[in-house]
Amino acid sequence: MEKSDFGLIGLAVMGQNLVLNVESRGFQVSVYNRTTSTMEEFIAENPDKKLVGCETLEEFVNSLASPRKIQIMVKAGAPVDAVIESLIPLLDEGDIIIDGGNSLYTDTERRDKYCAEAGMRFIGAGVSGGEEGALKGPSIMPGGPESTWEVMKPIFESISAKVDGEPCVVHIGEGGAGHFVKMVHNGIEYGDMQLICEAYNIFKAAGFSNEELADIFADWNEGDLESFLIEITANIFKQKDPETGKDIVDLIVDKAGQKGTGRWTVMGSVEQAVPFSTIAGSVEARILSSMRDQRKVASGILEGPSNWDFNLEMSKEDLVKKVRNALYASKIVSYAQGLDLISKVGADKGWDLNLGEIAKIWRGGCIIRARFLNRITEAYTADTPPTNLMLAPFFTEILNQGQSDWREVVALAATNGIPVPSFGGSLAYYDAYRAERLPANLLQAQRDFFGAHTYERTDKPEGEFFHTEDWPELIG
Amino acid sequence: MEKSDFGLIGLAVMGQNLVLNVESRGFQVSVYNRTTSTMEEFIAENPDKKLVGCETLEEFVNSLASPRKIQIMVKAGAPVDAVIESLIPLLDEGDIIIDGGNSLYTDTERRDKYCAEAGMRFIGAGVSGGEEGALKGPSIMPGGPESTWEVMKPIFESISAKVDGEPCVVHIGEGGAGHFVKMVHNGIEYGDMQLICEAYNIFKAAGFSNEELADIFADWNEGDLESFLIEITANIFKQKDPETGKDIVDLIVDKAGQKGTGRWTVMGSVEQAVPFSTIAGSVEARILSSMRDQRKVASGILEGPSNWDFNLEMSKEDLVKKVRNALYASKIVSYAQGLDLISKVGADKGWDLNLGEIAKIWRGGCIIRARFLNRITEAYTADTPPTNLMLAPFFTEILNQGQSDWREVVALAATNGIPVPSFGGSLAYYDAYRAERLPANLLQAQRDFFGAHTYERTDKPEGEFFHTEDWPELIG
Repeated sequence: MEKSDFGLIGLAVMGQNLVLNVESRGFQVSVYNRTTSTMEEFIAENPDKKLVGCETLEEFVNSLASPRKIQIMVKAGAPVDAVIESLIPLLDEGDIIIDGGNSLYTDTERRDKYCAEAGMRFIGAGVSGGEEGALKGPSIMPGGPESTWEVMKPIFESISAKVDGEPCVVHIGEGGAGHFVKMVHNGIEYGDMQLICEAYNIFKAAGFSNEELADIFADWNEGDLESFLIEITANIFKQKDPETGKDIVDLIVDKAGQKGTGRWTVMGSVEQAVPFSTIAGSVEARILSSMRDQRKVASGILEGPSNWDFNLEMSKEDLVKKVRNALYASKIVSYAQGLDLISKVGADKGWDLNLGEIAKIWRGGCIIRARFLNRITEAYTADTPPTNLMLAPFFTEILNQGQSDWREVVALAATNGIPVPSFGGSLAYYDAYRAERLPANLLQAQRDFFGAHTYERTDKPEGEFFHTEDWPELIG
Repeated sequence: MEKSDFGLIGLAVMGQNLVLNVESRGFQVSVYNRTTSTMEEFIAENPDKKLVGCETLEEFVNSLASPRKIQIMVKAGAPVDAVIESLIPLLDEGDIIIDGGNSLYTDTERRDKYCAEAGMRFIGAGVSGGEEGALKGPSIMPGGPESTWEVMKPIFESISAKVDGEPCVVHIGEGGAGHFVKMVHNGIEYGDMQLICEAYNIFKAAGFSNEELADIFADWNEGDLESFLIEITANIFKQKDPETGKDIVDLIVDKAGQKGTGRWTVMGSVEQAVPFSTIAGSVEARILSSMRDQRKVASGILEGPSNWDFNLEMSKEDLVKKVRNALYASKIVSYAQGLDLISKVGADKGWDLNLGEIAKIWRGGCIIRARFLNRITEAYTADTPPTNLMLAPFFTEILNQGQSDWREVVALAATNGIPVPSFGGSLAYYDAYRAERLPANLLQAQRDFFGAHTYERTDKPEGEFFHTEDWPELIG
């Protein structure tokens, strides 16, 4: 029997769809699943395809051409280690194990080392695009040894999404680089979704109907904001519930779940001392949404304008324009922060990450795919890449044109009791980043007062530290 | 020779001051320092005190009465492990090692286990109060085995700060509880300092002189906001630079450093899914302050109102009142979030933490000491402690009375280009917490659209999950 080009372990929906995608590009694929019946059903449902169903791991491993390329699609965490553990004794030197789940990148670093010591090659690959992306073409962010790239390229490039004929996959870097970049991608996805929700909340408070909302987002999708998330939002507002005939969005409970990657992005930023306000706002918003019972109680106790009493002192068209500018500016900040994190960690780890290439492979397949990623690629492939995305001329212009509306929207939300943690957090970042003077001189004085932490002086060379010996005595 | 009651390793300023404090309460103290000359100088400078200077660890250990009580005051991290490692072979069963530094509480948990296995007892004790607190009476947050409390109580209680005759120390809980609570204390300290800086920044932008600022903070310190940090702020504005005769605050560079504990608090909150916006705002503000070179460049590129063009459309008195209310409300939010984290982690770890007692020992000695901590203690010793600090009647009233001013200040700052991450982040939290409806229904629709994540429905029982099969197809 002919050996398979590719093997996949873990036949949940994402795994199944990836298999069908790989097979559709002319490759023969072996599949294994811990629960054999799932594998058998999958094979039975796809009778005419070049699939090899395997009941045991031994059979699975033996069915693969050398070097073996085995993708694991199981739950992040201990299950990944368990599969690696059981695979290694069966493999030959140079075989490749690919973890396509949302693993924490430091786990990937550990597994990379572990597999290398056993003579194997490990790829931690972020795969974005949901179920449909997995089937039709995801964005793929593979890390791991450089040597794996030539081997995997034909498969990865053929199954990935394409934009302007270019595949949405590139070798990100050594070790955990792929999963790290996927983690930040997901953090940015959190931010993008939250910004849309904040816009929705303001519009909803201002009395817009779902029909109007569908039109607004459809219209935004015609311009610079064109993106998958804006497009599906327009569609969501049109969706009726078959059971009641009502708009489905109004029937959905306002409690959002969260997975690890959004939280990890914020934790990683804090650890690395990289600003994080937009994505942090989205994480906190999800946490607060899940505290629905507490919110119900508090709504009768803590006072403030009600979402529903919104007194709109401008035309709807003006509000739409201003909110659009606030969203766009906040989105730029979110990407500036995310790319800053990628850049910082990439440098620390020696991954030599290419921000332009990374933005490029996010243009298709993945959840954050968007027209404006082309502009990010342009910014980072320019002769002098910007220190911060906001300083790339294209984005500076958007920010400078939109900042006044952005301020107005944040002020309006604060005044009217509408929480906008990500619009507001982004604006605070923008205003601090462009501030020649911040009040941290007082903070340094406080620290010197109570802890003799010392400070630099504006009238002395940088790097010289001073301490005030005679801060006034406190009474009592 | 008489055996000493207490031993201390690590004679930097904090260590020296703690020794002098313990000695002043009638105890004999042995001291050891890796660099012997430091120990010798310290002993020489304090000739009439009951101090025993030791040149070797053996000598130091032998000089202590049983069970030995040895406090380590060295840099957090590897140095703590190194000292423990070298002490253990010299100690007897039941001896007590106290780590008085700012160790990460998970490290403390590990050391607690390690020492217990070796037959010793380990106390991770947070000590707050800076140099002066260490000398005159700090707030002490000791964790570790319950059995250590009776042994340590006479020393800890006598050296700690006292408020209304009550010592600012209590056994916090097992394992890492002490260092965990100290970590959150420091996070809250970050928040408190940032809120003062945001108030300062607004006043400064509105053209207030340092003299006026000194008066405002001195006045605030007469009322509900009375606290160490408000008091020293008033004093800082009065301090002249002896060299130039100028106000020192204007000569200090606006670049703030950060230590681990503030960042750890935010990371811990994110990990535990507890809201974190106020303290997170303070951490991000410090990060941005440190990017001074980038800010200088950006200030000439990114547009917005200048801090210095602030057009004040109200009386100075009104602004002072409004900013005070914004600060007070934000401070309540900051404590609500910090106490929420303590409560959540405490429950997870089974530490049985007493929020009322914790607030009580923060009333004196430590950097965040403040009059309003009495109110927090009252709230948590009431018959039905609140789910959230904001819902305790005293604090609800402050928030309800101040929320309108708070909104106005956040809106004013946004409009005028003044970054207020913690005022704004706190308000966003407040408005989300009291929101009966948040826009997360849209977010859940998006997640169901692209990832089949399912959602709950408002017209169906909680815990039932639904998926829309026929979200509209996307074109392209």
